Amino acid sequence: MTNTNTIKLKAYKKDFDYSYTSDAFATNELLKTRPELLGCVYVHSEYRDTDGITALCKAQQVPCIQSDKAFSSVNQKENSYILGVFRKYESTLSDSEPHVVLVNSSDMGNLGTIIRTIIGMNVKNLVVIEPAADIWNPKTVRASMGALFHIRHASFNGFEEYAEAYPNHMLFPFMLDGEFSPEETPSCGLFSLVFGNEATGLDANFKQLGHSVKIPLTDRIDSFNLASAVSIGTYIFARKNGLI
Amino acid sequence: MTNTNTIKLKAYKKDFDYSYTSDAFATNELLKTRPELLGCVYVHSEYRDTDGITALCKAQQVPCIQSDKAFSSVNQKENSYILGVFRKYESTLSDSEPHVVLVNSSDMGNLGTIIRTIIGMNVKNLVVIEPAADIWNPKTVRASMGALFHIRHASFNGFEEYAEAYPNHMLFPFMLDGEFSPEETPSCGLFSLVFGNEATGLDANFKQLGHSVKIPLTDRIDSFNLASAVSIGTYIFARKNGLI
Repeated sequence: MTNTNTIKLKAYKKDFDYSYTSDAFATNELLKTRPELLGCVYVHSEYRDTDGITALCKAQQVPCIQSDKAFSSVNQKENSYILGVFRKYESTLSDSEPHVVLVNSSDMGNLGTIIRTIIGMNVKNLVVIEPAADIWNPKTVRASMGALFHIRHASFNGFEEYAEAYPNHMLFPFMLDGEFSPEETPSCGLFSLVFGNEATGLDANFKQLGHSVKIPLTDRIDSFNLASAVSIGTYIFARKNGLI
Repeated sequence: MTNTNTIKLKAYKKDFDYSYTSDAFATNELLKTRPELLGCVYVHSEYRDTDGITALCKAQQVPCIQSDKAFSSVNQKENSYILGVFRKYESTLSDSEPHVVLVNSSDMGNLGTIIRTIIGMNVKNLVVIEPAADIWNPKTVRASMGALFHIRHASFNGFEEYAEAYPNHMLFPFMLDGEFSPEETPSCGLFSLVFGNEATGLDANFKQLGHSVKIPLTDRIDSFNLASAVSIGTYIFARKNGLI
């Protein structure tokens, strides 16, 4: 396993066994809750430590190094004055809690936003069906604002593999021709809300699985943005089940 | 006024009286519904016209020019093979329809997503309180996927100015310490849903205006993403009022 204290920094790739936080939110979250994952935190010379990162690093015995070169080495496009190097870790889903399932979602900004949103609604398990956006990519981590470190998540190579592994979850595929509105769906505490790819949605076969759901919309748009659809769907289910 | 048939293309600036579409969705939308706004459509040599843009340009008598230089001239970061030059236009709010009000929202991606979302929920009036992200910026247009051209919108320099101009709208400011959940708010057909800036939300003074609303959330996150909050809030109000 890579020693994250001593790695030579370079632009992130999916096959690394480590990744980067690039904002104060996510770095703070790791420092407070799982400091053992952090090899090192770099701060830029222009960083104004209004977030107390430096002190927190000291308290948690995580090396904190001022280096502008670190930022050009990882070649991040966003303005960033903080960079935490963290080890990826194993995560397992709970079989007794609700899931959100993203089938082939491709946008890292959407993925991070969705993680933040569902954690805010007390839905703590996220399933990603590959191929899909990389959950560990620094862009996803940043969009999640640190919520990634609070979620249980797992990837599967196909939807069938997931459905076989969690046979007790009732499936609710969200589709443009779904049968129920979110409010009208049958009551169910152990639910899996299933959403398709940004451009293509779920294919017609999903209609046969569980109870398909349609979020009502006007004919002025073709579909909702994926993160918007997940926000609405998860909110209604979370409220119906007293999760928030 | 700039002649959009003959302008020398350059990177977009807020003070231009024209802007650009950079995707097939938005360009298609303009060609179909308001072709008179389009001075010209540029297509890249690598553009595969699966959307029928070229034929639509011909039918609507909008010049369609193949030019790769056009794309480097406007210096857009996103991959883009289509570029429509369109005139900005006057838009006015309806005083008898619901509004969504964004106070100092700063992210163009959020703004475009919100436009797409609320149009999908039959809420057709958007108010922007300055300073705020530019509604005409090509990034906003792109994120809206053409929904911008279906919405009524207006900017105000302060919230008071807006509230005075539309005294019959009942105000519902969304705040972390709001009084009502979205479902519990008093019934009201002529509503204004008011949302604050991404980082700071609405200031405490908004609590005194109308009925403040809190979207329930766990303590795992500080707040929802702005576009997620607008999606949830607008959805609940649209459903309560039979708009969708």
